[in-house]
Amino acid sequence: MLITILTICPEYFGDFLNSHVVKRAAELGLASVEIVDIRDYAGGSFRHVDDSPYGGGPGLILRAQPVLDALRTVKTGPSHTVLLSPKGTRYDQKTARRLSGEEHLILLCGHYEGIDARVEPFADEMISLGDYILSGGEPAAIVIADSVLRLLPGNLKEGSAEEESFENGLLEYPQYTRPEEVEGMRVPEVLLSGDHAAIKKWRQEESVRITRERRPDLIENG
Amino acid sequence: MLITILTICPEYFGDFLNSHVVKRAAELGLASVEIVDIRDYAGGSFRHVDDSPYGGGPGLILRAQPVLDALRTVKTGPSHTVLLSPKGTRYDQKTARRLSGEEHLILLCGHYEGIDARVEPFADEMISLGDYILSGGEPAAIVIADSVLRLLPGNLKEGSAEEESFENGLLEYPQYTRPEEVEGMRVPEVLLSGDHAAIKKWRQEESVRITRERRPDLIENG
Repeated sequence: MLITILTICPEYFGDFLNSHVVKRAAELGLASVEIVDIRDYAGGSFRHVDDSPYGGGPGLILRAQPVLDALRTVKTGPSHTVLLSPKGTRYDQKTARRLSGEEHLILLCGHYEGIDARVEPFADEMISLGDYILSGGEPAAIVIADSVLRLLPGNLKEGSAEEESFENGLLEYPQYTRPEEVEGMRVPEVLLSGDHAAIKKWRQEESVRITRERRPDLIENG
Repeated sequence: MLITILTICPEYFGDFLNSHVVKRAAELGLASVEIVDIRDYAGGSFRHVDDSPYGGGPGLILRAQPVLDALRTVKTGPSHTVLLSPKGTRYDQKTARRLSGEEHLILLCGHYEGIDARVEPFADEMISLGDYILSGGEPAAIVIADSVLRLLPGNLKEGSAEEESFENGLLEYPQYTRPEEVEGMRVPEVLLSGDHAAIKKWRQEESVRITRERRPDLIENG
């Protein structure tokens, strides 16, 4: 898998490229991540990547031309282009799974007050991280790339993903590690029992209990 | 405002600390961001920050002791501690607004397969970015810090925030910048008219139309 991130802030991604999830995916030959600077395509009669909005208003809008030129250059046959936008479909684990099956995922970061709307038809889909506003699409691209890369077969320890929150429509059960007592709080006895059937049952019940308590909508819509 | 990020991956935040939104907030004296390495607090009988889960299962759990010791050290009088967790309340713009009013915001990043559940009572709240799983809380901390910092009074151009997606319960209207024609697509004529009342009306109608089309739940729940 190749993930291409189109951005006007390539310097935002240095630490991310050095993160465990990216380096491990590369070492295992599962995926690589490339960063492409939209500014390199800001040719033509305007040399800058942003300009004032038609009709007035605060802020600057990312121009269509450099974005589309960059997109045309990086696109390969099987590319799937995602425009990161608060107007997109809300991102979830199902979408992460789907994107992890793409051969070439392009993540297009907006910035400033927005991006020229004429870019939208060139994306295969628009995705929003959630109902909140970021200063640009860059943090969103990191979140999506991270969540997709960790799902690639072999990038996680065997069995890690199956019992996580959202994978089975429930939140994860509570986890504990040594020591047995912390600040007067003890590990639930069942987890020390060595009784695997009882542990499995307790974890399942805790998952359901926590989900009902904190996110009943996951059960109602599930 | 002070934002303290507690993490076992301090190296993840170098580029973020150099980002526009952080630097501008610092220059204007609005906020500063500090990164604290949980590993510096991994003393006691265990020298490592993570260990296997009680009851078995894949992966490693972040230990409670170094997290709690780090938390106690960084806490000030008015601290508000957020544990980043998929089990948390789903983050949204209203929460971003609320957090931007805190004097000292502590963002506690989990990692690996999770964090010892006995840490939870020491957080004021748990927040989830959305219904998806990340390799750790670090990308989530960046998203939350970014969305909070940009809301600080003066960190954005006057009037920028009011018309954005989610601030008024609607998605933002389409934006366009020069040139008038891109790939055969023209800017809507009204935006070139100079008629401010007509532009305002068009934008309002487009906001409603796009929200109905893409996120009817925002209107139904609004």
